Amino acid sequence: MLKLYYSPGACAVASHIGLEEAGADYVIEKIDLRAGQQRTPEYLAINPAGVTPALQTPKGVLTQNTAILAYVAQTHPHAQLADLNDPFEFARMQAFNGWLASSLHPAIGKALFSKPPLEGEAKDEAVRIALEKYDLAENHLLTGPWVMGEDHSLADGYLLVFTRWARQAGLLDKARFPKLNAHLDLVQSRPAVQRVLHAEGITAV
Amino acid sequence: MLKLYYSPGACAVASHIGLEEAGADYVIEKIDLRAGQQRTPEYLAINPAGVTPALQTPKGVLTQNTAILAYVAQTHPHAQLADLNDPFEFARMQAFNGWLASSLHPAIGKALFSKPPLEGEAKDEAVRIALEKYDLAENHLLTGPWVMGEDHSLADGYLLVFTRWARQAGLLDKARFPKLNAHLDLVQSRPAVQRVLHAEGITAV
Repeated sequence: MLKLYYSPGACAVASHIGLEEAGADYVIEKIDLRAGQQRTPEYLAINPAGVTPALQTPKGVLTQNTAILAYVAQTHPHAQLADLNDPFEFARMQAFNGWLASSLHPAIGKALFSKPPLEGEAKDEAVRIALEKYDLAENHLLTGPWVMGEDHSLADGYLLVFTRWARQAGLLDKARFPKLNAHLDLVQSRPAVQRVLHAEGITAV
Repeated sequence: MLKLYYSPGACAVASHIGLEEAGADYVIEKIDLRAGQQRTPEYLAINPAGVTPALQTPKGVLTQNTAILAYVAQTHPHAQLADLNDPFEFARMQAFNGWLASSLHPAIGKALFSKPPLEGEAKDEAVRIALEKYDLAENHLLTGPWVMGEDHSLADGYLLVFTRWARQAGLLDKARFPKLNAHLDLVQSRPAVQRVLHAEGITAV
């Protein structure tokens, strides 16, 4: 049995979608980031980095969406959530997911979730930098209709995290980001994704 | 034939070490980040994100150290640079590498390489935040003697990037970070690593 530690609507949604799309045998446990629950001794014993997601497995705890998604794909091969037979194609998905984790996430996170919140010119500048990264996804990285092309993969649920945040913040302009908007709608239409949003107590946007 | 685009001493050192440790058939091409060469039309056609590393393969270009290292491990299984037979152990390495890419790299990069350079209290605060992440590696993430424990892996050359930067900046205090210092010395003693440093025109620190 797997246990996913998550916070509603936060980036662990990616791993949650991966587990649900895989038909994995798993349970979820909520960590309230706004209440600082990721800093309790109990949670730090699970993930000393004090962030979500963390996935408890029979062999130990895994962290980082990029690693958890690869693990889910490799341990549920029949779900066909990544190309496991071609190291190049597998790495291409990992490269996209790695870009989300190391480039898009920090940029949009700074714009929307800095503590204390950014204001004025600092906010505008952070939003500008983040939207240039959405431009990169729109114009270069998203193959379409799915991230990797014709086939759905675990990159799609991960991208949803950030297009969802952007749409909620009024930043996912339909003229500037037509492919990202279409992709978000497509991913949100998947039954597994709808089950995940419902389980986390959040909604499609 | 593989071609790695790198900048001397920058984070692409990780992929460069991976290729050398694997005994891969590859060449390298220097991209001078300080001269802005990553923003030329020629390089943006290779990696539209305008960063290094990028690895030209027979099937196309891969980016992101985390993805390139996994690709090198999977396409050179005899080099035993990752545990390819156990999805949990493979993901454990990917999780560490993902943490380097998404957490340690941005933190130490902000402290040392912001443009314009940080000064005064802003610099002190950025260094403090970065060193807390080195504490996490020292006290929780580095199993020892190698990152993953008894076996060398592709996580070791990646960690070297950041311990090397920290030592060069006088931040890798031996009392505070004994395991990280010992690890850096151990990795730098590897012949493949010495060949990579020489090829990039840089030195052990």
